[in-house]
Amino acid sequence: MAHLLHIDASPRGERSHSRKYSGEFVRAWRVAHPDDTVTVRDIGRHPLIHVTEDWVAAAFAPLAQRTPQMADALRLSDELVDELLAADVLVVGVPMYNFGMPSGFKAYIDQIIRVGRTFSFDPTDAEHPCKPLVSGKKLYVVSVSGEGGFLGGGYSAASNHLHPHLRTVFGFIGISDIDIVHVEYLMMAGDQLDKSMESARQQIDKLVANRRSESVP
Amino acid sequence: MAHLLHIDASPRGERSHSRKYSGEFVRAWRVAHPDDTVTVRDIGRHPLIHVTEDWVAAAFAPLAQRTPQMADALRLSDELVDELLAADVLVVGVPMYNFGMPSGFKAYIDQIIRVGRTFSFDPTDAEHPCKPLVSGKKLYVVSVSGEGGFLGGGYSAASNHLHPHLRTVFGFIGISDIDIVHVEYLMMAGDQLDKSMESARQQIDKLVANRRSESVP
Repeated sequence: MAHLLHIDASPRGERSHSRKYSGEFVRAWRVAHPDDTVTVRDIGRHPLIHVTEDWVAAAFAPLAQRTPQMADALRLSDELVDELLAADVLVVGVPMYNFGMPSGFKAYIDQIIRVGRTFSFDPTDAEHPCKPLVSGKKLYVVSVSGEGGFLGGGYSAASNHLHPHLRTVFGFIGISDIDIVHVEYLMMAGDQLDKSMESARQQIDKLVANRRSESVP
Repeated sequence: MAHLLHIDASPRGERSHSRKYSGEFVRAWRVAHPDDTVTVRDIGRHPLIHVTEDWVAAAFAPLAQRTPQMADALRLSDELVDELLAADVLVVGVPMYNFGMPSGFKAYIDQIIRVGRTFSFDPTDAEHPCKPLVSGKKLYVVSVSGEGGFLGGGYSAASNHLHPHLRTVFGFIGISDIDIVHVEYLMMAGDQLDKSMESARQQIDKLVANRRSESVP
């Protein structure tokens, strides 16, 4: 039995494509793992604030010097980190906005990358000052883009600043076991979209089935 | 005579390093170009909201079908685009947060990348559906990072998701004449920081001087 954290980053509701595919993923998962529990964090519909000067000061202050005001500045961040640490499996539905993550999802990333909680920092170690503090988690990214060519050696792969960035930030805190399902060409005419959707559905089925087979003794 | 738009993205005030160096850049620029005018957009101290579902619907609705509610959803975006288009030179002070731009600066990017205003979109052109609509502008990025090795072939260059992303998004709307001044190792012990700061100051002097010499008849 595992605990799954389902995060949706799209500001759109019914019209969101990333929400649709992350929803399909989680529904398939629940069928395959009926005993698993799920927490939903909807940062698209309930947007997160950007980190503030007080946040930065509080996050980097030694614990012993943390004032009540500092604790306040970190309250949301602490809640998000607790929620992340409580999960075994993360499913993140995220649209590509302007070649990267939407500002709303970057706000989430900026809240959960926390010194002393998700990574450690040693300023005297010039080349590797930071070490990850999270382990044993699996991340599934379900992403979408209006245009295409972002995958593999596609003609827009060099402009894909979403997937490499996600791999870096999650890897930084210790979440390196990552699978990405990406549906592209959502705003384009032609059959490339159909192919992309079909491929994503097959990939979702396979990922959910693979995870299931791993849990067989 | 040129018009300069000075954008600061750091949520920090006096303690901000990107603000310090972008400030040095603009001060040197004003000495070199006393007739130039400057507009300041402080998105660090005056954070921008994330784009919303209404924003997306409004931005992609044909102009003739735009309702007053849609115009409202785009009001801030229109203001930011007008301000950008009015500038000849952009100076952006931006810290690297978690290997990319802070969520606050991504919110700015998500607001200024606007179909019909800063790029055009033709869904029937599968490989090049988008064309830039901005031209003739010069962008200077003044960025900072707590750790180092992000430049050139540095040991963390593959984790630099700030500069390549900035080049992609600004290039996408037609701003490809970009120089980047980056100060790194701000949170590290050792003399690498001193070297980085000295190098940045020399680069600022050179960039401002080069621009000046170009304007000599």
